[in-house]
Amino acid sequence: MDLVTLDHVRAAAADIADVVVRTPLLPCRWDERLLLKPESLQPVGSFKLRGATHAVARLSAEQRARGVVTHSSGNHGQALAYAARAAAAPCTVVIPENAPTVKIEQVRALDAEVVLVPPAERLTTAERIVTEQGRTMIPPYDDRRVIAGQGTVGLEIIEDLPEVEVVLVPVGGGGLASGVSTAIRAVRPSVAVIGVEPEYAADARQSLAAGEVVVWEPARTQRTSADGLRTSLSTLTFAHLRERLDGIVTVTEDEIAAAMARLAREARLVVEPSGAVAAAAHMFRGDELPTGRTVAVVTGGNVDPARLSAALTAP
Amino acid sequence: MDLVTLDHVRAAAADIADVVVRTPLLPCRWDERLLLKPESLQPVGSFKLRGATHAVARLSAEQRARGVVTHSSGNHGQALAYAARAAAAPCTVVIPENAPTVKIEQVRALDAEVVLVPPAERLTTAERIVTEQGRTMIPPYDDRRVIAGQGTVGLEIIEDLPEVEVVLVPVGGGGLASGVSTAIRAVRPSVAVIGVEPEYAADARQSLAAGEVVVWEPARTQRTSADGLRTSLSTLTFAHLRERLDGIVTVTEDEIAAAMARLAREARLVVEPSGAVAAAAHMFRGDELPTGRTVAVVTGGNVDPARLSAALTAP
Repeated sequence: MDLVTLDHVRAAAADIADVVVRTPLLPCRWDERLLLKPESLQPVGSFKLRGATHAVARLSAEQRARGVVTHSSGNHGQALAYAARAAAAPCTVVIPENAPTVKIEQVRALDAEVVLVPPAERLTTAERIVTEQGRTMIPPYDDRRVIAGQGTVGLEIIEDLPEVEVVLVPVGGGGLASGVSTAIRAVRPSVAVIGVEPEYAADARQSLAAGEVVVWEPARTQRTSADGLRTSLSTLTFAHLRERLDGIVTVTEDEIAAAMARLAREARLVVEPSGAVAAAAHMFRGDELPTGRTVAVVTGGNVDPARLSAALTAP
Repeated sequence: MDLVTLDHVRAAAADIADVVVRTPLLPCRWDERLLLKPESLQPVGSFKLRGATHAVARLSAEQRARGVVTHSSGNHGQALAYAARAAAAPCTVVIPENAPTVKIEQVRALDAEVVLVPPAERLTTAERIVTEQGRTMIPPYDDRRVIAGQGTVGLEIIEDLPEVEVVLVPVGGGGLASGVSTAIRAVRPSVAVIGVEPEYAADARQSLAAGEVVVWEPARTQRTSADGLRTSLSTLTFAHLRERLDGIVTVTEDEIAAAMARLAREARLVVEPSGAVAAAAHMFRGDELPTGRTVAVVTGGNVDPARLSAALTAP
């Protein structure tokens, strides 16, 4: 299988420069070895803007005029809507009709067309829109363009901190971990790139141990608050992680909540549960990790205000 | 009176590069004209690190070995402790004995010596430490080195967004506004630099109208939640603002709270009340401001978790 290369990631970096925020590395006053890469500060609140922007940039002028479509109602849906608007391309986001109203309104506020369907019909509806309207499907992670875009996070880490030794990156569908490990392994192979999963969605760890993609049922992954990490790997992302990731650790729900609170109180970042797992691994799983200067990728900040409020005021 | 010049600010920019985070400009999805400069992301949670770091860098080797002292227990005290530690200089922070324990512990965690005194004895104690121990006093704003350091915020804004038209900056003691207006007026005089104050601490606006420093009594300024902006101008900062600031607007307490909530929910930034006033001015006082591409400086994020929680869950 053709894997994404460093050249692809470098091309993505050039594509996204005008749309994506160049996030800084933030030192943590409570731990001199730890720096945070706050992708929560992207204008749609997550790193997903990188892959979506690169994917849109790689369309031909004709494809761009016909527009893009996706069936993710979460961070990728918002990211694609934002990226398409920035490129003046039409965008349709297929959303399950039981989704929270606020999510639907956020996508509409980015000038994307919203198509509401029964949950089971999301994929087929998006595919029909591709066939009938000529839009290009941009999936959330099972896509080389998207992986290359997410990999720019890794390039920036190496540029800003050449002496980094460990990079911690959340693993959901595996697009970010695939891209980051691709970039870092090519530029600086001595750096350990470690994936982090909630223990309630540790399907990637199990997949790597089994040597094949293992899918965890939704009933099982629903137990984690890290809703962005409930998805399984694809064959494509599995192939990247098997070859390029140096390991995977897991964190508990209590550890995720404690990391969210600490990031809000002491790093002044609003972080969603999925975005807190890498920092949680550094805080609570140090004995399972390589030592040294560490960067934790804070992937996103789209958290329900009530949940953040509860984390802030927990004892 | 000698005012700080662009050359001073440029020298400060070189001094602070290794200690201070180069904060990005963050686009706001709810308003295409507005970008945020999130100084809340500095490792001590405020822009004060800039001035303190530059002031420490300008000490002679002998002065640095004898150390620094200040009598600010707020953001400047923490900033000076952090800057001194980074330069391996001893640091004493004089703190009133009625200060919250958490503030005292935060300064101690940065390896500074804490001297607790009755509130009325802060300044005299700090001065005695200067005389007896040879430490150098680094005041929070009434100091050319500190003003030059804060001015680097303005340099970075122009570098990152040369087409900026309006810069909104909170005014407390006036150090930040003095530095930012110095840098921007010298580099790009067409940009409007506007100060923002809480209406309960609008002493700078009154001072500029009166043509002299007007001090508001603590009993009056205590009414604002923006505790970092309760201080009055000094003769030095007044001289800068009179010559270089393009105007001052004020915001209400409700507007400050609403801006804090919006910055947390939609920009994913934890912001203290003082840090929210510039964004509040853009959100609610647009009719009093020049139009155009606007940067609001988000000065700090050291907010009580309970207060942030209340803002997040307000209707």
